[in-house]
Amino acid sequence: MEIQKRKGEMIKCFSGEYGKTIGRIKSVGQELLESAQSKIDNKTKPLGALGKLENLAVQMSLIQNDLNPKLNGKAMFVFAGDHGITEEGVSAFPSEVTAQMVNNFLAGGAAINVLCRHNEIDIQVVDMGVVYEFDDHPKLLQRKVRKGTRNFAMEEAMTRSEMVEAIQNGMNVFLSGYDSAQIDIVGVGEMGIGNTTSASAIISIVTGISPKKATGRGTGIDDTCLEQKARVIENALKFHKPDSSDGFDILRKVGGFEIAGIVGTVLAAASTRCAIVLDGMISTAAGLLAYLINPEIKGYLISGHKSVEIAQKAALEYMGLEPVVDFEMRLGEGTGAALTIDIVDAACRIMREMASFDEAGVAEKK
Amino acid sequence: MEIQKRKGEMIKCFSGEYGKTIGRIKSVGQELLESAQSKIDNKTKPLGALGKLENLAVQMSLIQNDLNPKLNGKAMFVFAGDHGITEEGVSAFPSEVTAQMVNNFLAGGAAINVLCRHNEIDIQVVDMGVVYEFDDHPKLLQRKVRKGTRNFAMEEAMTRSEMVEAIQNGMNVFLSGYDSAQIDIVGVGEMGIGNTTSASAIISIVTGISPKKATGRGTGIDDTCLEQKARVIENALKFHKPDSSDGFDILRKVGGFEIAGIVGTVLAAASTRCAIVLDGMISTAAGLLAYLINPEIKGYLISGHKSVEIAQKAALEYMGLEPVVDFEMRLGEGTGAALTIDIVDAACRIMREMASFDEAGVAEKK
Repeated sequence: MEIQKRKGEMIKCFSGEYGKTIGRIKSVGQELLESAQSKIDNKTKPLGALGKLENLAVQMSLIQNDLNPKLNGKAMFVFAGDHGITEEGVSAFPSEVTAQMVNNFLAGGAAINVLCRHNEIDIQVVDMGVVYEFDDHPKLLQRKVRKGTRNFAMEEAMTRSEMVEAIQNGMNVFLSGYDSAQIDIVGVGEMGIGNTTSASAIISIVTGISPKKATGRGTGIDDTCLEQKARVIENALKFHKPDSSDGFDILRKVGGFEIAGIVGTVLAAASTRCAIVLDGMISTAAGLLAYLINPEIKGYLISGHKSVEIAQKAALEYMGLEPVVDFEMRLGEGTGAALTIDIVDAACRIMREMASFDEAGVAEKK
Repeated sequence: MEIQKRKGEMIKCFSGEYGKTIGRIKSVGQELLESAQSKIDNKTKPLGALGKLENLAVQMSLIQNDLNPKLNGKAMFVFAGDHGITEEGVSAFPSEVTAQMVNNFLAGGAAINVLCRHNEIDIQVVDMGVVYEFDDHPKLLQRKVRKGTRNFAMEEAMTRSEMVEAIQNGMNVFLSGYDSAQIDIVGVGEMGIGNTTSASAIISIVTGISPKKATGRGTGIDDTCLEQKARVIENALKFHKPDSSDGFDILRKVGGFEIAGIVGTVLAAASTRCAIVLDGMISTAAGLLAYLINPEIKGYLISGHKSVEIAQKAALEYMGLEPVVDFEMRLGEGTGAALTIDIVDAACRIMREMASFDEAGVAEKK
């Protein structure tokens, strides 16, 4: 009750349309559940034999409120931001890599570019808070809130108004995309040296798993660095005492600008009944915050892939989601989501194109 | 030694070019292993962060002996055949469904059609031994050896000359396809009511797991039918005493014509250095027999997906293969392979198109 009230007050901080966006989200309707399940059950195959593809086919039917779901517009937003927490020596790569990788995204040379080309997904890169001045580029959306978050070992990662601006920017990039071209599915990726520390902290707070358990090797840190990372998170949680049920409070204290951008896009996408594919641990941590802010987004969420990072599993279990693919990946950027978007596309085609026992004249089970 | 001799004699039964095909198979060359691994390691990502995609990228480089592997021709052969063993009441669907499903494949309405269209894979259906006379159809290759195998609970499933003919037919469909258009990757699917019984028997014989353990629910049989199926297999193994190291002996005694077709295509594909994607339990059982006949095929094999059937796991472990996707599917037809072919395609693009740290000007790990 108290929390709901506080959340309500927080939402009032958002300007006009953005505040309304959060309120406009409605749970995925269940009206077609029975007919969608019956449609997939009557396809020419043993009951349930297409496994996860069947679940995705039914979920997409409900999201689109249509027994012939279709992916026309497929979008990927890759949010980038730097992290003050890197001062604590928590990452295997130097901070400069965030900007360098953004330039790699813009040049089309990163893994996410290759996978988006392969699956015909429109990619946009969003600078939410990189410590670098980028030139204009057709694939770059300049939404910088600040050059990097503050070091959350010492102070809150961002101010309240910075957080509101970052979430709004995240909503804005999706909603402008939505205006210009119908997006039926959106993948949310990220780049930000230091952001697994932020994501581990978020997941530890929300799910209650210990900071030590929530801490993984990120881009590949050694044992000493791993211990340091867990200690940094543990101390930060003691220092900030974030409210484990308040997504805004957690985001502001230990989050990142790219994470806030994902939160905004997830909320905006759900408000327009668009399917959302989360990626690895950071993207999932952001999805978790959006879920805390408005649990009605759940039916729109698809977990793109199982990350090697253990904390991701805790976050998915908290939301009751199961990852679609498990390729032992731990790259982020949206790479797992990009692969899964194509699987969702295949599942929609199964729902639309596959013949039923009746249509094909095939005998059913004895 | 004795087995090698017997195998050699068996291979002599194949006519001219077919006999040579088996002998022509050479293990995948390892010359490029170091440079392929180094190429993928230097892409702009943490070491190993693309997980299974990296393994596939390296494997495809070795198969094609090219650091820029590419899938031009993508083919799927779906082999169909009926099984005398269905007389023993081992399946949930009536035998007629084999022919009905072949017609469904030809009409483009089955799951495998949808997934092949989605991933732009050329599909051909091969009648190896269906109890039905099909009209000519551009997508149907008529290679019927006999209308169904004999009931292997009572006698050997096929004669030696039928088996040789069936394997040759399987080689032939691949080799003629190979002549007309370069195939870089081939998926091997199947349809045949009763064929999980055959596949369970094969896997039990080769891997040594008990018939009971090797027996699954196939298209969805109940507990009574499951017990009956396991008993049928157990009795058949006692009766036939197949030689667990002789693929030909096992195939003849408890196999199927569609299984023999897959064996032939796998051997022919390996002889032309083509990547082979196995599908579910039946396809994997056929791959296992081809592997017994000539273990040098191993480097060309990719396990398309993890089946719900436990026996498949035993077969994969025997060959040292790990499945690419796990969507809890149990349909066969080649559906898991069709999904994985696109993942292999993505992995090849990663190898070709993704920038290295040097090319992108990205700093490496500290």
